[in-house]
Amino acid sequence: MSITTKSPLAPDTFPNLLPVAGVEIGAAAAGLRYKDRPDLMLARFTDGTVAAGVFTKSKMPAAPVDWCQQALKNSHGRARALVVNAGNANAFTGSKGAKAAAKTAEATAEIIGCEPEEVMLASTGVIGEPLDVSQFPKFLARIHDGLSGSMWKEVAHAITTTDTFPKGSCRVATVEGRPVVISGISKGSGMIAPDMATMLGFMFTNANISQAVLHAVLANTVDDSFNSITVDGDTSTNDCVIAFATGKNANTELITDPADPRLEDFVAKFREVATDLAHQIVRDGEGAQKFVTVDVTGAENDAAAKRIAFSIANSPLVKTAIAGEDPNWGRLVMAVGKSGERADRDGLSVWIGEQLVAENGMLSRKYTEALAADHMATDNIRLKVDCAIGTGSATVWTCDLTHGYIDINADYRS
Amino acid sequence: MSITTKSPLAPDTFPNLLPVAGVEIGAAAAGLRYKDRPDLMLARFTDGTVAAGVFTKSKMPAAPVDWCQQALKNSHGRARALVVNAGNANAFTGSKGAKAAAKTAEATAEIIGCEPEEVMLASTGVIGEPLDVSQFPKFLARIHDGLSGSMWKEVAHAITTTDTFPKGSCRVATVEGRPVVISGISKGSGMIAPDMATMLGFMFTNANISQAVLHAVLANTVDDSFNSITVDGDTSTNDCVIAFATGKNANTELITDPADPRLEDFVAKFREVATDLAHQIVRDGEGAQKFVTVDVTGAENDAAAKRIAFSIANSPLVKTAIAGEDPNWGRLVMAVGKSGERADRDGLSVWIGEQLVAENGMLSRKYTEALAADHMATDNIRLKVDCAIGTGSATVWTCDLTHGYIDINADYRS
Repeated sequence: MSITTKSPLAPDTFPNLLPVAGVEIGAAAAGLRYKDRPDLMLARFTDGTVAAGVFTKSKMPAAPVDWCQQALKNSHGRARALVVNAGNANAFTGSKGAKAAAKTAEATAEIIGCEPEEVMLASTGVIGEPLDVSQFPKFLARIHDGLSGSMWKEVAHAITTTDTFPKGSCRVATVEGRPVVISGISKGSGMIAPDMATMLGFMFTNANISQAVLHAVLANTVDDSFNSITVDGDTSTNDCVIAFATGKNANTELITDPADPRLEDFVAKFREVATDLAHQIVRDGEGAQKFVTVDVTGAENDAAAKRIAFSIANSPLVKTAIAGEDPNWGRLVMAVGKSGERADRDGLSVWIGEQLVAENGMLSRKYTEALAADHMATDNIRLKVDCAIGTGSATVWTCDLTHGYIDINADYRS
Repeated sequence: MSITTKSPLAPDTFPNLLPVAGVEIGAAAAGLRYKDRPDLMLARFTDGTVAAGVFTKSKMPAAPVDWCQQALKNSHGRARALVVNAGNANAFTGSKGAKAAAKTAEATAEIIGCEPEEVMLASTGVIGEPLDVSQFPKFLARIHDGLSGSMWKEVAHAITTTDTFPKGSCRVATVEGRPVVISGISKGSGMIAPDMATMLGFMFTNANISQAVLHAVLANTVDDSFNSITVDGDTSTNDCVIAFATGKNANTELITDPADPRLEDFVAKFREVATDLAHQIVRDGEGAQKFVTVDVTGAENDAAAKRIAFSIANSPLVKTAIAGEDPNWGRLVMAVGKSGERADRDGLSVWIGEQLVAENGMLSRKYTEALAADHMATDNIRLKVDCAIGTGSATVWTCDLTHGYIDINADYRS
């Protein structure tokens, strides 16, 4: 079956992504799995560009994940290119997979004129099938000939699998009084899509910052953005977010301290782009009909709050209740209880939208189910729990669990 | 909507449960939530009966769970009665809930002629609604007048919520050359049902054993039976398994050492009953079309193997692939990877049924997808993963994730 209907939670149009000085991009239809659509992208970076990445914690990482982690070490965080293919995850492909990754980097390095270790790689698609890269040099050379600074929608499309819309976000920050662009693209429709892998995010900026600063900004940002979303709780073999900073036509002085106050606006805008890209993945969650924000306060600490929030956001019973527009707060209590984190049962408060549902461990006298039901009928659901234990808090985002999810995942490969 | 279709995985008929000397049972339709069906059960135990329980690890335990844990302490494990209601979980009901539990125990104690602390309680049903027990004394007295040793099907029915069939199991063990009966009933259709709570199990035997022995046998058994099943990974506020031993018309000498060799057959049969009851809950899993056995071997230790097995058994992507009869082994690899436990990616082996699918971290040359697909088309699925790390092993049981699950849980309350 074909899954082509655009998510009801999708933005109306692909946003306007500004070019990033020092970044040229392009895509081609390499016919890896899909027909008549781009499925291979190349980004070329100016000399001096630094890169930083965060990768899946899966114990079964894909070959390109292994490659990037090693390459970033060897190159001391310098990067000249990024190659991403969709349709085949190059995961669980053994030594053949590692060779396919190396060959892709070597071919790219030859075209660009750089070292293979300066080429970052990512793959997304079916797990366990060998990735045939024999045609990659031809297609990469063809893309290279037509690189430009503005084909964001094409490359955002090229990295999608079961996504129903391409995902992008852009902000302009001010550093030392000069404009710095942050453009980003992402893909993902399940935390892992069908038998597909996965969540990918790429962020590009012309900020003039050291690799250590880029890494620190990225690492601090992913926790509250990409690592605060869930569709089905399934972690992919290929998850990664990689950021690139070219240093071109931006702030004049290289900033080398992550705590430098001149970076304040940059860090804020970087976070906005990351959060926007992460939200778009949730909005394209497989079968999603509703975007859900889960706030947890009063937990023992922030980590505990996040575990409770994910316990709620990953609960099949909570997610099906949301699909059914049922203000079923008992399931929220169940999910808090099963998280294993401390919470005061007899002090617990629960909100659905603005409605206080439960307080002091039981149904609130102020609760009007009709008002909560009204909120559940919208497509932007807010759930909040206060644990009455401490000051830890967290926010995570998810979507509902619908027949669409079953359709996509039970029927996709056949 | 009404969910009344019997699970396709249900046994043909309710099994023949033998009476247990010293145990009298009965049920009534108290109209708590359901109409025209029993929803309140009472079991009366002979003087000298000992009880042992294992309870939910939820941090939001229901009032009857609190009650039983305290009562077992106060009574030093002696019990004279068990009262279970279906339709209302008496969970997250604050001090009112605790009072409702105490009143139920007091009324029962008066009818039976025992102490309230000798009355075990369990509730299952909607979370967060006050449980009105004002009519309980009347109904309990009525049940008490008609108690008998053989109404197993009626009481098994009385404790169900969204279950599609009543669950029971029986074995006869030989202890000191004499027959000892073990009869048990259970309920559950999700680990937590719709907005319902939960998984309950009750086992009754006339074995002449001390409370310490009963507790040890129960605790050792639940790990590989009730605690090795999952429908949706959601843990209820009311989960409990309670065992009762009357000591009547059984082995003549009281056995006080759990390691006593005379208990060998009893322990084996007790485990058979517990496993059978647990399997029946999975076979009644919400929307289940397939019964799934997940074997993990070669893990760091047994606990790691169990976490990997549950990571597979709880993965929405694995469960939807099973629903779609898709031998999607890449999702098994993904689930092993996300478990966080050690596994040798490049030594991993995967089986679907008898088919070796992957070995040495990649697709096996012996693999024939058509044969794996044949196995996936059956309703008794066996999945196996060898981690190539150590000697830890575990087996867990689950069911597939289907449209039926969404139907039941998105639409139930409305």
